[in-house]
Amino acid sequence: MRVVITGGAGFLGRRLARAILARGQLAGPDGAPRAVRELVLLDLVPAEGLDDPRVEVVAGDLADEALLRRALGRDADSVFHLAAVVSAQAEADFDLGMRVNLDGTRRLLEACRALPRPPRLVSTSSVAVYGGALPDPVTDDLALRPQSSYGAQKAMGELLVADYTRRGFVDGRVLRLPTVSVRPGKPNKAASSFASGIVREPLSGVDAVCPVTPDTKVWLLSPRRAVEGLVLGHELPSAALGDVRSVNLPGLCVTVAEMVAAVAAVGGPAAAARIHFVPDPLVQRIIGSWPARWDTSRAERLGFAGDRDFESVVRAFVEDDLQRPGEG
Amino acid sequence: MRVVITGGAGFLGRRLARAILARGQLAGPDGAPRAVRELVLLDLVPAEGLDDPRVEVVAGDLADEALLRRALGRDADSVFHLAAVVSAQAEADFDLGMRVNLDGTRRLLEACRALPRPPRLVSTSSVAVYGGALPDPVTDDLALRPQSSYGAQKAMGELLVADYTRRGFVDGRVLRLPTVSVRPGKPNKAASSFASGIVREPLSGVDAVCPVTPDTKVWLLSPRRAVEGLVLGHELPSAALGDVRSVNLPGLCVTVAEMVAAVAAVGGPAAAARIHFVPDPLVQRIIGSWPARWDTSRAERLGFAGDRDFESVVRAFVEDDLQRPGEG
Repeated sequence: MRVVITGGAGFLGRRLARAILARGQLAGPDGAPRAVRELVLLDLVPAEGLDDPRVEVVAGDLADEALLRRALGRDADSVFHLAAVVSAQAEADFDLGMRVNLDGTRRLLEACRALPRPPRLVSTSSVAVYGGALPDPVTDDLALRPQSSYGAQKAMGELLVADYTRRGFVDGRVLRLPTVSVRPGKPNKAASSFASGIVREPLSGVDAVCPVTPDTKVWLLSPRRAVEGLVLGHELPSAALGDVRSVNLPGLCVTVAEMVAAVAAVGGPAAAARIHFVPDPLVQRIIGSWPARWDTSRAERLGFAGDRDFESVVRAFVEDDLQRPGEG
Repeated sequence: MRVVITGGAGFLGRRLARAILARGQLAGPDGAPRAVRELVLLDLVPAEGLDDPRVEVVAGDLADEALLRRALGRDADSVFHLAAVVSAQAEADFDLGMRVNLDGTRRLLEACRALPRPPRLVSTSSVAVYGGALPDPVTDDLALRPQSSYGAQKAMGELLVADYTRRGFVDGRVLRLPTVSVRPGKPNKAASSFASGIVREPLSGVDAVCPVTPDTKVWLLSPRRAVEGLVLGHELPSAALGDVRSVNLPGLCVTVAEMVAAVAAVGGPAAAARIHFVPDPLVQRIIGSWPARWDTSRAERLGFAGDRDFESVVRAFVEDDLQRPGEG
């Protein structure tokens, strides 16, 4: 079967690609496992570091229809849609966010619709679809009132995937991810970038800036659990989701102060001392509009799992990314 | 001030235009009343029947950017966005619905964003944004899970208006209308078309087909109250809506059997006998996915009002449309 990952050059895309290559198979159209013979990594820049004959690297803009057709080929069976302009960037450049997050998603759905058979489509969404007065925890039935353009674009993407699925154009599943932490590599333009930076940088001997207050609560998911969730989201039979195609994945609710304590526990007080609090009102506003916890009972019934505690997340980061940095 | 009505040739658009012309003024950018000097009726077909020097008729496609610029002129102050491909038509022709209901709304918002001053934008949405398992009544905080492409397009339009408002590109207000009944004129391609037809046709001496069962509950608003609601939605200060730009307008929850009884009360048993029940599973499915009642306490606090009972709605229809048919 042919599998496509958009955002395939990104950290999560590459990690997902490795997981799929290691499994060797995914559920086919009828649900039975089939060998993954072609794995297409589509991204703005060529995906690197995946040396496997099954991998095909396609570089270009998600809004380019010809490129999408090339990536999907004649009969892609499965698409993981991870590509996005991240939160703070979509807030800073409204038009770019609309073009990639809304138009790109729509073009991808149209390209899927043109395939001979509706592919499975696993799309990621975000805590950012929520906003306004939020109960704790947020329940599945709560109205989406995003307070950022990124969140609005993701919410529209969810509606598109649900309607394309209802009409039989795709078999779509939307996974609302908590903030993924700890991400390796460099800071990005997500408002939540600090949620990785305040762990990654100190443990690498580098100073880190935290733009939000220590009592700020965040809702986190480790890369390991995120990749497991993406695979499970693909493998579930369509009927398991019914009419509600979006699932709030389990996360871990921690304060920034608790994150700092976990850094101290793993890297010692010197590591924690490298975290400097420099308030950024825009980041605080965006992060503060996101839920710090949501009810995950539906996800758990479907088999999704979160992390046990943040210290084990930090230890997994050390193991996966500091000790074996080539395998991101 | 310059005011634009999209869908201005439609029944609600023309009735709104008459109401605005009769008032002579609307709230200006600072909230103070200003004289309406130009009223632009934009629609696919030229709006007819409004003989007033303030009226300008513009005909063409909502997706045509040049046309939108022409309609808005250099400095439109207010836009009422009523144009839409209706529910059953958007279900039958997915691409047309997307082009008008999503792309058209987005182009209009972009044209508004290009104005020197963010205009007030009153946009209509629908019961169709809801779907799935619905509590009775539906509350404002309930997640939108539309079960039709029309509903999905309207829900995306709501997200667009909210985000364009948050960013200061427009001062948007979305009014979720119950099914408007009784509409004069001919049946249209809305799934809810029968909710006017089973009153209008029998009282005009014509047979009518009802595609849903007598126990089907519907959520209705009369044209008089709908127009009042549109004007009030425009006049409210922006701060009255805060972060939540969509308002569920008050309606009347009645069964189809109760509607038939009101026809009998006003037109006699012979009129009611002209209603023939011919089930249509598609219409029943779409209508059945809509809420039959929602919590209207927020709308009432804002000053919106619904109808007292359906018999008075029918009597108003006779008065407005059967006895004075030229004034629709």
